[in-house]
Amino acid sequence: MKIALAQLNYTVGDVEGNASKIIEAIEKAKQKNVDLVVFAEQALSGTPAYDLLNKATFVELCEEELEHIAEHCDSLAAIVGSPVAGDEGTVSAAVVIENGQITRRIAKQYVDYRDEMGYIHPSSGTEVIRVAGEQVAVVVGNDLVRVRDCDQSVTTIININARRFRKRVLEARYEKFHHIAYVEGKNLVFVNHVGGSTDMVYDGTSSVYDSKGELVMLLDTFQEDFKVCDLAAQNEPIATPFSYYQNRTRNLYDAIKCGLKDYFYKNGYKKACVGLSGGIDSSVVLSIAVDALGAENVRAMMMPSQFSSDHSVEDAVKLAENLGVEYNVVPITEAYKGIVESLMPVVGGTPFDATEENIQARIRTIMLMALQNKQNYVMLNSSNKSENALGWCTLYGDTAGAISITGDVYKSEIYDLARYINREREIIPENILNKEPSSELYAGQKDSDLLPPYEVVDAILYRMIERGQHREEIINAGFDADVVHKIHKMVMRNEKKRFQFCPMLRLSSCTLGCDRVLPLTNKYGD
Amino acid sequence: MKIALAQLNYTVGDVEGNASKIIEAIEKAKQKNVDLVVFAEQALSGTPAYDLLNKATFVELCEEELEHIAEHCDSLAAIVGSPVAGDEGTVSAAVVIENGQITRRIAKQYVDYRDEMGYIHPSSGTEVIRVAGEQVAVVVGNDLVRVRDCDQSVTTIININARRFRKRVLEARYEKFHHIAYVEGKNLVFVNHVGGSTDMVYDGTSSVYDSKGELVMLLDTFQEDFKVCDLAAQNEPIATPFSYYQNRTRNLYDAIKCGLKDYFYKNGYKKACVGLSGGIDSSVVLSIAVDALGAENVRAMMMPSQFSSDHSVEDAVKLAENLGVEYNVVPITEAYKGIVESLMPVVGGTPFDATEENIQARIRTIMLMALQNKQNYVMLNSSNKSENALGWCTLYGDTAGAISITGDVYKSEIYDLARYINREREIIPENILNKEPSSELYAGQKDSDLLPPYEVVDAILYRMIERGQHREEIINAGFDADVVHKIHKMVMRNEKKRFQFCPMLRLSSCTLGCDRVLPLTNKYGD
Repeated sequence: MKIALAQLNYTVGDVEGNASKIIEAIEKAKQKNVDLVVFAEQALSGTPAYDLLNKATFVELCEEELEHIAEHCDSLAAIVGSPVAGDEGTVSAAVVIENGQITRRIAKQYVDYRDEMGYIHPSSGTEVIRVAGEQVAVVVGNDLVRVRDCDQSVTTIININARRFRKRVLEARYEKFHHIAYVEGKNLVFVNHVGGSTDMVYDGTSSVYDSKGELVMLLDTFQEDFKVCDLAAQNEPIATPFSYYQNRTRNLYDAIKCGLKDYFYKNGYKKACVGLSGGIDSSVVLSIAVDALGAENVRAMMMPSQFSSDHSVEDAVKLAENLGVEYNVVPITEAYKGIVESLMPVVGGTPFDATEENIQARIRTIMLMALQNKQNYVMLNSSNKSENALGWCTLYGDTAGAISITGDVYKSEIYDLARYINREREIIPENILNKEPSSELYAGQKDSDLLPPYEVVDAILYRMIERGQHREEIINAGFDADVVHKIHKMVMRNEKKRFQFCPMLRLSSCTLGCDRVLPLTNKYGD
Repeated sequence: MKIALAQLNYTVGDVEGNASKIIEAIEKAKQKNVDLVVFAEQALSGTPAYDLLNKATFVELCEEELEHIAEHCDSLAAIVGSPVAGDEGTVSAAVVIENGQITRRIAKQYVDYRDEMGYIHPSSGTEVIRVAGEQVAVVVGNDLVRVRDCDQSVTTIININARRFRKRVLEARYEKFHHIAYVEGKNLVFVNHVGGSTDMVYDGTSSVYDSKGELVMLLDTFQEDFKVCDLAAQNEPIATPFSYYQNRTRNLYDAIKCGLKDYFYKNGYKKACVGLSGGIDSSVVLSIAVDALGAENVRAMMMPSQFSSDHSVEDAVKLAENLGVEYNVVPITEAYKGIVESLMPVVGGTPFDATEENIQARIRTIMLMALQNKQNYVMLNSSNKSENALGWCTLYGDTAGAISITGDVYKSEIYDLARYINREREIIPENILNKEPSSELYAGQKDSDLLPPYEVVDAILYRMIERGQHREEIINAGFDADVVHKIHKMVMRNEKKRFQFCPMLRLSSCTLGCDRVLPLTNKYGD
């Protein structure tokens, strides 16, 4: 049985466009004389489509395009992922096309409780079809991990899926798929989405495992790809690509770049602006933006206040010049004075506090949004996960932007990304990498005044958030009890800032605000 | 069988506090010699608790407090709603206490796909218990609407629930409950939450229907209440309170007031600030805030720009004086100039456009947030659903605040609320009610320049959003096709503004951003 794996980058809602891509791949597959060509879950609609799936007209449009696609499948079979109208709601189906006809709609049983329920209805799950004389189990999405004791006659499991990238997922997925193929003793063909879609980044990395669990084919990561696998042939196991999977920083970098590029491309945005503080976060965001969108499409603004140190602007200018992007230095001193003086009759005479810090951060948002409004430079957010977790951010200031590409990345990982960006030559000035983190919102401020260094804070946050550990567990692991309690309190108290956060690429197994939602009215955990 | 209905206002996460309230009501019920006292679904935890329900320590704390509560139930039975650890996850149970012991944990089967899945796990549902020699079916939450053909021996259905208020729900709920009691031929006892919790407002309105479907007891709406019903007695049907249910504007007003009050009280906020434009929206918000929090806790800021008309400030001042709140007039002219002039080297020389409009709205947010930061006047949002749907709002400007109390209320309903507020005397100056809506962000702007009057726009939006009608249906109902298509486009394109919206009281059957979620990356519907 010869199977073509079509790993394509679809756009949510662009049903006609996605259908064209699918038909193009079918024509290519025909030339390769394959028995079957396989597309990802919800390929036709794109995903996540949320409430589009509850629009009858949208699901009907998919049905029309499926008929259109079927006409092209005269000499081969195809499996196309599409939403399909079910008895109780829309289901996520593997639509089977044979001899130019839709013959089956096999829809998944296990629907993700958080991301899909309410949009996708659970259905009856896996079915077996016959392809080129062989029995093939067709499994949609995460039904795969529930596959148990497949019928003996089945030789191959085909899984159409939409697995998003998250840190460390590639290793975990390899282990899981290897295990399923080995235990079931079947070939396993996995076809994934690739590309960014709203806050998701699909990594692709479609693959084929043989019935001994050996990886025999691997498609590109973060790129479209098309490969043909002859399951009857003696396929050599390819070396388990540990060196590839284990380069976590490169994977993270590529995921962010892919997510940003597609967020812009698919939404019709072209140009981006970044507020450069001279700190590490905005430096990393600017560098990735230049890589993803091109230096000619990116603009930097340095907006020093009276609390900014001299080196901040110098370092930021050096970075902008290294990257070859246009930049402006726009001091916010006058705007700040204008606001503070107007407010004098209301709040005047009180000592400098967080209020004045926040005013600065919010003026910077006004400036960047003006550039966005006037010249279509779409504002990028420059936050990081450590600060977002702790609430070290100003609402409508640091939380603003069209998209946050690093908001789910811990501060220590931001440093890893910076070093990766500098792997061949100095792009981010060493001075930025070496200076102590500071918001520079008041004189002499340093982040370490309040908490231990970021490595320690991040280790505690990771245990708390990604691993869901209780404070006692973290303290027992050797962390300072006072610090753990202080951090816990900060995390619990700042959900209100995360609620109004701009859209954020989901890059971890637990993105704050999506995978971990606290009620805003809540007395637990104080 | 004598049953006490305890309709209490719980706080999410305050397990000890909620337990104390429950114990207090148990003691009161004992004095009344009841057989059974009933509390709402998830009374002990409060609701919505979201990911608190996935914390083992939280569910354990509930279990500890249940033991504590049980000790008080020596001479009566109790049914207490609480999260309980199930085999596959936390379930929402009616915990049955008899003779001072927990005897059953009856957990609901039907979990809301959007609001509960991922937090609450489906369980096996309704069970029958014996109380004072009678068979009683215990039904949690929305399992009630699936009750069919109850066992003949059952005399009474007890439904512990957490039904939030939405416009028109009281009539619909009455019809549904009446129907269930009548068809099943059983008494129906419904015990609800009351009070605001994050973006939800529970209306209470707990009730008892007899086996003929007649309403025989009704508890308060938007207030705590405690009543005893002797089901063996000849209970007179109480007049169906249509006059009560059908006063939609009063119900909406009370829901908003209740939601705002509890949002403040339960989060430890005391004082609120509102930016007064002289328009209808902020006038209604200020008036409700004064009613909910007291004039002494509310402060108004008028922030005119060069585009504000003279009457705007005058009208706003008159309103503030009518309400007896402290106010400041803080022109934003200097701050506006400071920002526009600083930006001159970047965007200067271009004609006035939406950029400058947005700058004004964002400066006002900075001003209000400064008052919040400096003096703990928590900023209230003043948006309405018509503008939010159309995207007629400035991100970080009109979308900002700690809570939006009118963001799910159409512009025409805002007028209804204003007239209700003025029902006894003129609080909101007639001039504000009569002037044509305008954002006053550029000279001579009127909202009706771009679209028909709000009554028409709202009728179209209501069909599109609440009723989920397709454009063709709306056009067939007699609305202008161009207007319908224009509105549809605006609604589809502005999800990105709604994504970053501040928390908003959910007051309708379809709150944008919660009950209707569009992907930000989406090519459908342009």
